[in-house]
Amino acid sequence: MIDGKTGIIAHIGYPTESFKSPMIYNPWFAARGINAAVIPMGCKTEDYASFLKLAFRLTNVRGALITMPHKVTTLDLVDEASVSARIAGACNAVKLDERGLLIGDMFDGEGFVRGVRKKDRKLNGASALVTGCGGVGSAIAASLAKAGVSRLGLHDAFPQSMNRLAERLRAHYPKLEVEAGSADPSGYDIVVNATPLGMKKDDPLPMDVERISPKTFVGEVVMKEEITPFLAAARAKGCDHQVGTDMLFEQIPAYLEFFGFGTTTSDELRELAQIHY
Amino acid sequence: MIDGKTGIIAHIGYPTESFKSPMIYNPWFAARGINAAVIPMGCKTEDYASFLKLAFRLTNVRGALITMPHKVTTLDLVDEASVSARIAGACNAVKLDERGLLIGDMFDGEGFVRGVRKKDRKLNGASALVTGCGGVGSAIAASLAKAGVSRLGLHDAFPQSMNRLAERLRAHYPKLEVEAGSADPSGYDIVVNATPLGMKKDDPLPMDVERISPKTFVGEVVMKEEITPFLAAARAKGCDHQVGTDMLFEQIPAYLEFFGFGTTTSDELRELAQIHY
Repeated sequence: MIDGKTGIIAHIGYPTESFKSPMIYNPWFAARGINAAVIPMGCKTEDYASFLKLAFRLTNVRGALITMPHKVTTLDLVDEASVSARIAGACNAVKLDERGLLIGDMFDGEGFVRGVRKKDRKLNGASALVTGCGGVGSAIAASLAKAGVSRLGLHDAFPQSMNRLAERLRAHYPKLEVEAGSADPSGYDIVVNATPLGMKKDDPLPMDVERISPKTFVGEVVMKEEITPFLAAARAKGCDHQVGTDMLFEQIPAYLEFFGFGTTTSDELRELAQIHY
Repeated sequence: MIDGKTGIIAHIGYPTESFKSPMIYNPWFAARGINAAVIPMGCKTEDYASFLKLAFRLTNVRGALITMPHKVTTLDLVDEASVSARIAGACNAVKLDERGLLIGDMFDGEGFVRGVRKKDRKLNGASALVTGCGGVGSAIAASLAKAGVSRLGLHDAFPQSMNRLAERLRAHYPKLEVEAGSADPSGYDIVVNATPLGMKKDDPLPMDVERISPKTFVGEVVMKEEITPFLAAARAKGCDHQVGTDMLFEQIPAYLEFFGFGTTTSDELRELAQIHY
């Protein structure tokens, strides 16, 4: 029950209609007896810079979850951003620290990495291919680098975003071997589709599944259906895999830790949310 | 359950800890199947003017409940204010109308008047005395004038606020007989304590109860206890009376109508809120 002592997590984006976070976080806060709530706030682009600053002047705002279309803009609005956020070029979480500074972070990639670890795949020293170097692909690449992969392949239909991501990765992780330009999945321990391919019915597959080894771990970001055509093809080859919503649920414990609410597991969150994809 | 389609009523004030409205409105929204929620937003004075404007730029904000210390300031921030708000010199409710203008209103006095009517007291043509011409007293005076009282006595320890209120009442209600300066309750159909007297243990009574007729209706705004010493004295004389929280609950249907959520009764609200003063 919301009252005058409730801590607010402002969930800022536009449009708000498809927001899922309130239904995942709020039952968990209730179950844990934490007086906090994620509150959707539909903010258009032209108002966002002013609104973000003022939202953090409110005395009961504990943090902000940032979503479309504000993730990229946020990087320039915070006082400090994590390495992952800077490599991703975007923030999806903001808090005020004890110095009064706005701190930005990016957990899309952290969710992916936690999901891989949960399936007992080792990331330190592994090789990974990320196809799609937009917001989510960049975040996944940043988190894979942070998790210690030694070789990272990048591919995007638009070379510019791919090359810029490669530069940022090399600048922050000089020992990391970055290979930009090929979508060939052969020889990688982990491959990820971070393109939108799979959203539409007749989309081609994002990479040549024939060249994926059955030992390769296959990840997906598209959430339109649990098993996308890409995941179905990988599964048919016997590959371990991770569905798009795993990344969504796995990142929430990371957010909760960031905001200082303690931690949980994705399994507990799913059960409380009673959302079964 | 809050989701991406929830309409937000921003409950703006500072500090927020003692806010009661979320626990009164939100159970009613839930019971009626209305996807809306009152959300406390702790906003300090220096941020308020900017924040109010931006809050109404959010795509899912349906209105604002304004409380201390922003009620007076709000009058200058809205594009249009009701006569009652202008007489009261304050707004406690704001909405955006179909023209995109910010509309302010004041329901503290409306709550008092609805409470009097509920107890079958006629206001049209009646006489009333309001002691205390601060925010709540001014609002009650404005609503009594709107409800058609023909004679209105005002008293305040600070003559300036009393005289200004008298001027505003005379300007908007030229036929109303306004008598400013005496706290003598004799000869009035209705008398109201709108001073803070009764908040502290050793406060004197706000008027000479000996001079209140047993036929006079006695109202109170102090909510520290249900039956204040003033109400206890009036009750001992056999006077019909209205406690402070009646005004609080009676004004909520007026707010709900203002925001376009339909209407209800104070009894339904009390039952759903399970708050029994």
